Amino acid sequence: MIQGIGASAGIAIGKAFVLPNWEWDLPEQKIDVADLAKEFDRLYEGIKTSKVEIEQIKGELREAVGTAESHIFDAHLAILEDPVFMNEVQGIIQRQYKVAEVAVKEAIDHFVTMFDLLDDEYMKERALDIKDVGNRLLKHLLGAPEIKLPSDTQPFILVAKELSPSQLAHLNTQHVLGIVTLAGSTTSHSAIMARALGIPLVVGLEAKLERPIQTGERLVLDGDTGELLINPGEAALARYRALRGEQQEERRKLHQLAGVSAVSADGKTIALAANISSLKELEVALPVGIHGVGLFRTEFLYMDRTDFPDEEEQFEVYRTVAEKLNGQPVVIRTLDIGGDKQLDYFELPEEDNPFLGYRAIRISLDRKDLFKTQLRAILRASHYGQVKMMYPLISSVEEVRAANTLLEEAKRELHAEGLPFNQHMPIGIMIEVPAAVQIADMLAEEVDFFSIGTNDLVQFALAVDRMNDQIAHLYEPLHPAVLRMLKATVEAAKSRGIKVGVCGELAGDSRALPIWLGLDVDELSMSSPTVLNVKNRLLGTSQTDSRELLSALMDCRTSAEIGTTLLEFKRKSDAARAEQTVSKSE
Amino acid sequence: MIQGIGASAGIAIGKAFVLPNWEWDLPEQKIDVADLAKEFDRLYEGIKTSKVEIEQIKGELREAVGTAESHIFDAHLAILEDPVFMNEVQGIIQRQYKVAEVAVKEAIDHFVTMFDLLDDEYMKERALDIKDVGNRLLKHLLGAPEIKLPSDTQPFILVAKELSPSQLAHLNTQHVLGIVTLAGSTTSHSAIMARALGIPLVVGLEAKLERPIQTGERLVLDGDTGELLINPGEAALARYRALRGEQQEERRKLHQLAGVSAVSADGKTIALAANISSLKELEVALPVGIHGVGLFRTEFLYMDRTDFPDEEEQFEVYRTVAEKLNGQPVVIRTLDIGGDKQLDYFELPEEDNPFLGYRAIRISLDRKDLFKTQLRAILRASHYGQVKMMYPLISSVEEVRAANTLLEEAKRELHAEGLPFNQHMPIGIMIEVPAAVQIADMLAEEVDFFSIGTNDLVQFALAVDRMNDQIAHLYEPLHPAVLRMLKATVEAAKSRGIKVGVCGELAGDSRALPIWLGLDVDELSMSSPTVLNVKNRLLGTSQTDSRELLSALMDCRTSAEIGTTLLEFKRKSDAARAEQTVSKSE
Repeated sequence: MIQGIGASAGIAIGKAFVLPNWEWDLPEQKIDVADLAKEFDRLYEGIKTSKVEIEQIKGELREAVGTAESHIFDAHLAILEDPVFMNEVQGIIQRQYKVAEVAVKEAIDHFVTMFDLLDDEYMKERALDIKDVGNRLLKHLLGAPEIKLPSDTQPFILVAKELSPSQLAHLNTQHVLGIVTLAGSTTSHSAIMARALGIPLVVGLEAKLERPIQTGERLVLDGDTGELLINPGEAALARYRALRGEQQEERRKLHQLAGVSAVSADGKTIALAANISSLKELEVALPVGIHGVGLFRTEFLYMDRTDFPDEEEQFEVYRTVAEKLNGQPVVIRTLDIGGDKQLDYFELPEEDNPFLGYRAIRISLDRKDLFKTQLRAILRASHYGQVKMMYPLISSVEEVRAANTLLEEAKRELHAEGLPFNQHMPIGIMIEVPAAVQIADMLAEEVDFFSIGTNDLVQFALAVDRMNDQIAHLYEPLHPAVLRMLKATVEAAKSRGIKVGVCGELAGDSRALPIWLGLDVDELSMSSPTVLNVKNRLLGTSQTDSRELLSALMDCRTSAEIGTTLLEFKRKSDAARAEQTVSKSE
Repeated sequence: MIQGIGASAGIAIGKAFVLPNWEWDLPEQKIDVADLAKEFDRLYEGIKTSKVEIEQIKGELREAVGTAESHIFDAHLAILEDPVFMNEVQGIIQRQYKVAEVAVKEAIDHFVTMFDLLDDEYMKERALDIKDVGNRLLKHLLGAPEIKLPSDTQPFILVAKELSPSQLAHLNTQHVLGIVTLAGSTTSHSAIMARALGIPLVVGLEAKLERPIQTGERLVLDGDTGELLINPGEAALARYRALRGEQQEERRKLHQLAGVSAVSADGKTIALAANISSLKELEVALPVGIHGVGLFRTEFLYMDRTDFPDEEEQFEVYRTVAEKLNGQPVVIRTLDIGGDKQLDYFELPEEDNPFLGYRAIRISLDRKDLFKTQLRAILRASHYGQVKMMYPLISSVEEVRAANTLLEEAKRELHAEGLPFNQHMPIGIMIEVPAAVQIADMLAEEVDFFSIGTNDLVQFALAVDRMNDQIAHLYEPLHPAVLRMLKATVEAAKSRGIKVGVCGELAGDSRALPIWLGLDVDELSMSSPTVLNVKNRLLGTSQTDSRELLSALMDCRTSAEIGTTLLEFKRKSDAARAEQTVSKSE
């Protein structure tokens, strides 16, 4: 058994197919001065073909896994339009009379070496992008064929030194049971894509393998634990088959809960809603039996385009979501870009600390033209279903008032134009900035509901960027300070008689369910694959017990104590539930 | 009157001296193949001379303005050792037979163009550094003379298109009354240096001037307001002279307060202490009449070196500070690097959000070897004065316990070695992470004192990077949420019977003094130039009134309300004080 890093969950069992590296035979002849123009034409033709191909991959990927992941290829398109890179290629052709293939190869090597020397993580990622897009260009210039995977055989486990997003996007995933890469990290573009595609992935085996894996060898990989077995014995094989079977059975059982009401063991209802980014994700969420959409991230409407979507376009999407929900609520969050979310056509400033920067409501209040367009589109959609709206990253009463002033303006305009809208559309805010927790009582008097965004809240409260590997262990949602912030927020909302939900990742973490039940939140909104898990936990947990648990948790001084107390509680309620099931069946 | 941007405070009145731009005549001849080696020797010689010169400037600057600013030139030294830049220069000489001067010039142009194209603020700053250091190298290769400023004439106001840190460092500042630059920003390296040197500076006049300023013209500049007057009339001149006189008179009056006790109008004492980074800064602080040092930033001991300072070296500095304070307390903060503070010899990871990253106590607990050395040095110094110690960026009880465990280890070691130390040296923590405020009651039971770091606390609480121009207006220390956090922290400390001080910028902001007096904090620690200002305010303010004010402030819902309420309070107490002075003199 070899211990790698699990980068995409699930168990895969099958034969290895080892991907050859991209290596090229480059022509050595020089070109004639008279043929320079022809060589440039070849280069431009290759660039054009590469661009078309990248656009096509982007399109396929958007279909398959959504907008956010297809976005990865925008960096590749940008390189093909980058004057610095292209000058270098052209210079080598023009001054050294080398053929376009060689010029591209040398330019790639030049930049990769240079960026590596700079010893800067950002630049190293750029170097990988240049390598990937450069190889694509080389492929077209050389007329080299796409790497073919066996498609007529059994499904297989793909083994590669490293896998670029380009290569991954081209895989016929029906035949790929799982992937093993020697290099790679859990946060690479390829890992993100594997998770979105639902392919188990283990990475980081570089130094662990004693010999190369051969095509045809039998592999078992566990994307949860990062384990890899090469030619396992029958006993191990049987164990992993059983484990895979259990996982499948668990999934089957959970699916039977879709039609069951979301109530606690002692009858308390919590609305379990979905977080979505697109209509496509809504289609995936509806069969799960959600109670509406608790977070519609509108920024994805703005991505993968060349300009801002206009009012009509936005209105159509918002109205369709509202209508498809058939009377169930949708909470539309206004534009939340900046931080790590960028738009191609809207240049945001380079920032030293983008999480603490120009983003979300700050951009909306600065670019009132964009904001007004969105407010009008959301208002108009409110006529066609149960639409609510919320503002992200609120940190002061002033911001809420400024946004609402603009909303009133939009309402007056629509009224004057005779366009229908819900005059009483509920307005809420995200509680995700520590300052908002502190003044939650004041904010509650300005709005109709709160939605707690635990991801950002925990990051700011603990001063920890959870994407930063070096300190990721300090990102601890179950921190005593976080519990107090959650409690203070819920109490502020309840004392002012407004509703309070949760839409961060902690909402979909079934460990945390008794906390929400104990705090008595009204709604939990999460990615749709986790809804049934949480519902399962809710069905087996009592609110009375959860309240008792919560009061014990509030006395804990460390995250470790909180974790242990939660685990002990789960053990007890699982035992009680099992006993109940037994006595029922007797 | 022309409106620029004030980048360094103060009024300057004098004649203009316009600095010519650095322009070079480059030799056009090619070099002979046989002379290649000689040309390389010339290049290396030029690099060596440039390095020596930069080291010398660094040394002078450290003498003049301290460690932090001299650090700017480390980037320049790094470029002269950068293989990418040097390969480019050598390549041009070797392949194109151009002389070293031309090769350097072309390499500068190449990188500046390239970095500018990348459209990345960080790279643009790097481009400026390359330009600056490249010009220095060119100067040595060409044997061109240093730009001479008139030194035998009257003091003057320097006018330049832009001013590099190199140029500024070379100025004989005795003759420079003030500086005007057409380009530049308040956050540039040059502006930071001008402030440290105390030279009034106005920047950003590029588009404002209708014609160039001529050497010899009379100028008035106000570095507070950013105003520039060219050949002003007698009335304006008289007005600014009077203003300058008032500023000087105010400074003189304040200096008389150095020996006066720091008590409120109704007899409440607050310890007014200094923040220092070095022995040199302590020398500046002592004559101001400080009550000890509330924050000794030890990270500056670690800068401008090639390796970590060892225990002996640190011990010497800490002991000297303790002894010079002559029985008054010094609070030594353990190493607080990371974020925007880097060491040349300790490579920190590139981070997307360094403020939320690997820094301060997180590094100390990760690099226990470094931490232990510092703990031992501080403990040993505790034998020689009233030494206290505090940990930065604490966000959990676990961190405090982990640090204290190491401290106990260090104590056992010193005890075994027979080295003297104060067994009961008081241990405190910085309260600067929102989570620490939330669990201040729990933390108070682990330590002897709190020191509130308002700068970071406000940044995290509001999710605003105050160095980010685009959202700097949202950095609002007088935010209702911040007031509540301050109040909660002080109350937690008092209820547990431990001391609480403040050492962020807000401690030295005299506007905020009644807040601290109302909250009843024990100590305010600030940069020494602001101590007398705050003392002046304290002498004229009553704690009873401040308590009443505070309760009114706690009801404010916006920063604007808080600002107005504070202003109104100041107006009233100034009027009362003036009346009192009048009745006393009657």
